[in-house]
Amino acid sequence: MNNFEFCVTTDILFGKGQEEMLPAKLAAYGKRILLTYGGGSIKKSGLYDKIKNLLNGFEIFELGGIDPNPRVESVNKGAKICRKENIDLILAVGGGSTIDCSKAIAAAAFYDGDAWDLITGKGKITKALPIAVVLTIATTGSEMDQAAVISNMQTNEKLLMGHPYLLPKIAVLNPENTFTVPPYQTASGSADMMSHIIETYFDTVEAFVPDAIAEGLLRAVIKYTPMALQDPEDYEARAQLMWTSSLALNGILATGKSFMWSCHYIEHELSAYYDITHGAGLAVITPKWMRYILSDSTVDKFCDYAVNVWGLERSEDKFKLANQGIDYTEKFFSKIGLPSKLSEFGIDDTKFEVMAKKAVEIGSLKKAYVPLEENDVVNILKMCL
Amino acid sequence: MNNFEFCVTTDILFGKGQEEMLPAKLAAYGKRILLTYGGGSIKKSGLYDKIKNLLNGFEIFELGGIDPNPRVESVNKGAKICRKENIDLILAVGGGSTIDCSKAIAAAAFYDGDAWDLITGKGKITKALPIAVVLTIATTGSEMDQAAVISNMQTNEKLLMGHPYLLPKIAVLNPENTFTVPPYQTASGSADMMSHIIETYFDTVEAFVPDAIAEGLLRAVIKYTPMALQDPEDYEARAQLMWTSSLALNGILATGKSFMWSCHYIEHELSAYYDITHGAGLAVITPKWMRYILSDSTVDKFCDYAVNVWGLERSEDKFKLANQGIDYTEKFFSKIGLPSKLSEFGIDDTKFEVMAKKAVEIGSLKKAYVPLEENDVVNILKMCL
Repeated sequence: MNNFEFCVTTDILFGKGQEEMLPAKLAAYGKRILLTYGGGSIKKSGLYDKIKNLLNGFEIFELGGIDPNPRVESVNKGAKICRKENIDLILAVGGGSTIDCSKAIAAAAFYDGDAWDLITGKGKITKALPIAVVLTIATTGSEMDQAAVISNMQTNEKLLMGHPYLLPKIAVLNPENTFTVPPYQTASGSADMMSHIIETYFDTVEAFVPDAIAEGLLRAVIKYTPMALQDPEDYEARAQLMWTSSLALNGILATGKSFMWSCHYIEHELSAYYDITHGAGLAVITPKWMRYILSDSTVDKFCDYAVNVWGLERSEDKFKLANQGIDYTEKFFSKIGLPSKLSEFGIDDTKFEVMAKKAVEIGSLKKAYVPLEENDVVNILKMCL
Repeated sequence: MNNFEFCVTTDILFGKGQEEMLPAKLAAYGKRILLTYGGGSIKKSGLYDKIKNLLNGFEIFELGGIDPNPRVESVNKGAKICRKENIDLILAVGGGSTIDCSKAIAAAAFYDGDAWDLITGKGKITKALPIAVVLTIATTGSEMDQAAVISNMQTNEKLLMGHPYLLPKIAVLNPENTFTVPPYQTASGSADMMSHIIETYFDTVEAFVPDAIAEGLLRAVIKYTPMALQDPEDYEARAQLMWTSSLALNGILATGKSFMWSCHYIEHELSAYYDITHGAGLAVITPKWMRYILSDSTVDKFCDYAVNVWGLERSEDKFKLANQGIDYTEKFFSKIGLPSKLSEFGIDDTKFEVMAKKAVEIGSLKKAYVPLEENDVVNILKMCL
């Protein structure tokens, strides 16, 4: 077990009707709120009106239309509103994209220049507005972590930024707000959570406690995703998925581990070039990556995964068992309606080399659980065709 | 899954040498520190000198000699020092007793009267000094929760107090600081953690995610306690136990559950009348309580416990399986050297009625997982003889 610091201060308000806690909780931070949201599904679902009514004692400014794979243009736009309107706090109502964009806005509000500088590291985060969240999809865990992923379609870059200041102060997790999430997005969200857990679980450092938690969370996603797809208003299923999404990436699974990821960096390149749904891309890459890195030195961990996550029986033939665990992973993604090939997105091998080069560099993949060179990433991508 | 709020802001500094982070972290709270500790084991182990050296830029006042089952007299004494010396923060170096006492002191420093009032509820907690912890034994989880248990030997009362202000700001968890914990205390600490997990797990509300985490943490205690007893300097074993102790009671296992305990309240009465080691008392009570409450309505949960915690095979005969899980629990406590009968403490049935009455009242045991009346508690205690 490696040394670690764990300090996750987000005030989680979980369950039915918890939005009603917002006025009292937000008042501690001020009166002038930037309300951020995505494509308008919160208007259709009635959540937008509900929030506006609840916050009628506040001055509300708005930034809607935040894209999936949120763009730096939205960040700059939001930061401008914050400066002009003297915003006290940002309330993100949405999923990972809206929350990530809001985190970047919160920091960019105090930066005198292009927000992209804060993402590339050219500029420094010195301060950030407080952020509150009303979560509407179980996926990224951004509601309880310090990270944001922002895209720049001009440069085909999708990059990660992180800072303790970006950790949300308050997060309302009402499972009912995910009832309207369509099947493909529900499934993609689950694939994203599973990837967060898997990337942290497969690590050079083994640590019993976080790994046992990881296995439990994976079993939760496997159990409840089909139930949520079957009945989108199954409260218990939506609740277990929602809480899993936060715990999958709030750092608890990484306690004592080295936290060197692989698949996310490869997928970020796909999203940067082809703007595909992040979780769906991960569903394609993850099983292929697993198959590619399976070896004498990783087989025992894959056997634990097969037994403790998928309930398979321990057997003499380790590689057979390990491959069965991977088969189950692959079949699960198919069963919940996700693609298994890049060709299903219309992606061919044209950009594999350039994407591989960037993934290796940005993700420090040479230091990953199983170190990956550019040709390894190209090989994995070819397996995905 | 019930609604819940989860907000645990403690800054956990985990691992070798993490005490060195203290000067920078504590400076944020002030210069005048009340250093609290127990019977002097930290002087023998060298930790006392290490901390004093690290904090040579601070003004240190001391309160040593805090008893196991900490007394209200120590709380009043500590509060007096805080007021007189204008203390900025309390640094508790020790285990549950020292931390709990320090929490009560932190609140009593702002109360003009007998600290016992704050514990009985006669007085109100309006403010508290910040608390930092250097943990020296894996047991109570007090380092990451809002509760404290204080004893009054005059009135034979051992009562729980809780307030968000009492949550430690900082906790150093260096597994090396537990190398010198003697076998009986190590085992008692593990029984205490197991009880925290079990009391939260057996609940009218089932919730997959916290229950899966609970099962994982129980497996961790079962795996690593014998290893720590075998080799007290087994870092990995001490580390897994230490992190488990915090997660067992920081609220994560209670998310969405009703959190109505039983055994702890019965044990508190034993400690209040006989001053026995809390974890050892729990090792006696827990399996008997399990046996007593096993019924048609609880058997399925006991089967999950048998399978997912003890690795037993699912079988047709549910009661046989459930009883096997309880047998394993009982055998485990014996194996790690803990008593299985109250007679081993020299406790007879003289006070069973009075203790049962108080346990039912203080612990609201009529609302527990399986509701308990006074005669039920007497029956459970008789099974422990």
